[in-house]
Amino acid sequence: MNKEDRHEQLLRFLLSFVTANKQQLIASRLVERTRHITIVLEDIYHSQNANAVLRSADCFGIQDVHVIEGRNEYDFNPRVVKGSLKWLDLHRYAHHQQNTEACLSRLKANGYTIVATSPESGSIPLQQLPIDRPLALMFGGEKNGLSDIALRMADIKMHIPMYGFTESLNVSVSAAICLHDLTRRLRESPVNWMLSKEETEELRELWIRKVLKDPDGLEKRFCDENEASNSAHQ
Amino acid sequence: MNKEDRHEQLLRFLLSFVTANKQQLIASRLVERTRHITIVLEDIYHSQNANAVLRSADCFGIQDVHVIEGRNEYDFNPRVVKGSLKWLDLHRYAHHQQNTEACLSRLKANGYTIVATSPESGSIPLQQLPIDRPLALMFGGEKNGLSDIALRMADIKMHIPMYGFTESLNVSVSAAICLHDLTRRLRESPVNWMLSKEETEELRELWIRKVLKDPDGLEKRFCDENEASNSAHQ
Repeated sequence: MNKEDRHEQLLRFLLSFVTANKQQLIASRLVERTRHITIVLEDIYHSQNANAVLRSADCFGIQDVHVIEGRNEYDFNPRVVKGSLKWLDLHRYAHHQQNTEACLSRLKANGYTIVATSPESGSIPLQQLPIDRPLALMFGGEKNGLSDIALRMADIKMHIPMYGFTESLNVSVSAAICLHDLTRRLRESPVNWMLSKEETEELRELWIRKVLKDPDGLEKRFCDENEASNSAHQ
Repeated sequence: MNKEDRHEQLLRFLLSFVTANKQQLIASRLVERTRHITIVLEDIYHSQNANAVLRSADCFGIQDVHVIEGRNEYDFNPRVVKGSLKWLDLHRYAHHQQNTEACLSRLKANGYTIVATSPESGSIPLQQLPIDRPLALMFGGEKNGLSDIALRMADIKMHIPMYGFTESLNVSVSAAICLHDLTRRLRESPVNWMLSKEETEELRELWIRKVLKDPDGLEKRFCDENEASNSAHQ
């Protein structure tokens, strides 16, 4: 049996331990998942804000969240994250010099347009942000906003139009508004925002493993049984 | 001098103590203010969530927020509210039996369509909520959502479409997404969402008083000077 067939068999074996309900849940969420939009959090001070962004990301089908930890390290609080962390790909850039540059360079190399949320003049309103190309939305710290390097490396500056005396929204609120608006427009558009077949299969396997109590134990059992059956046939 | 002229003179007197910048700020915010949409918070547990909703309300130009305090009383935190409370009309329904009923009956009598945010089947997605008539958006507590009476009295049930494993958003995030979406559509629509001339004048006076350090002292000075001048002319 070649490696691919064996992997296919292992997956079928693991799947036999997943309830029909959960299989259906995974299938229904996979077709809604996107990497067309991703989030970059730069040096968010309050973990509860970062946590709330992760929860919104999962709710709107965003798969990747990039977290740049500068002065602040995160404590991902289960009460706020509500399990969303389990289903996301969290990319952490921590304890490095120039981690903003590393993160944004990688995203640019992967075809993302870098969008800075910034109230500066010349920034475009959210509803005019074009969605045809992959977007990485950056959100900065509560006190000082995005760093200079983040603003310099941004391809587009964007803001949420506001009409009150208060001139800023909480960072988790801003991120949620952007994700809601952009994913709504994406889902109504002809843009190809869904995961590729390969990405879907890879994520499906990851999620199947997540819903199992002991995926590694089951894999070992599969290997042992397979070996025993191979020995018996020799 | 009749009462109206006198009031007009008092206003001009007060206005002479307001900087041109602040006068312009007030004028620019007044034309963006609306009562076409209002918010009802029912028994929110965490004050920080209620505070964040007030901040979003001001940002999107909502003038009225109704707060029904059941088991929970609020502590409006200046750090989160960011001064937004100063510019809003906060209507509190506290320490009463049946305060939800009182609040919603009053809103209905004032022509509002009551909208419950609810994931129930049969609820319509946010983007399909009609905006032609005045809307009161209700948001319930973090744990149990809206009360039975709130759900029974609602004219429309509405939800924010979600596509992830996490099936709920933080209440302050939900409210902000709704306010952003609905006010964006309102501002692009031919609906007459602005304050009436009378409401605008009333709010302008209120805001002028808010930006002054000692409006009552100034009013007293105006009355004293007026009286003295009247006496001198007799």
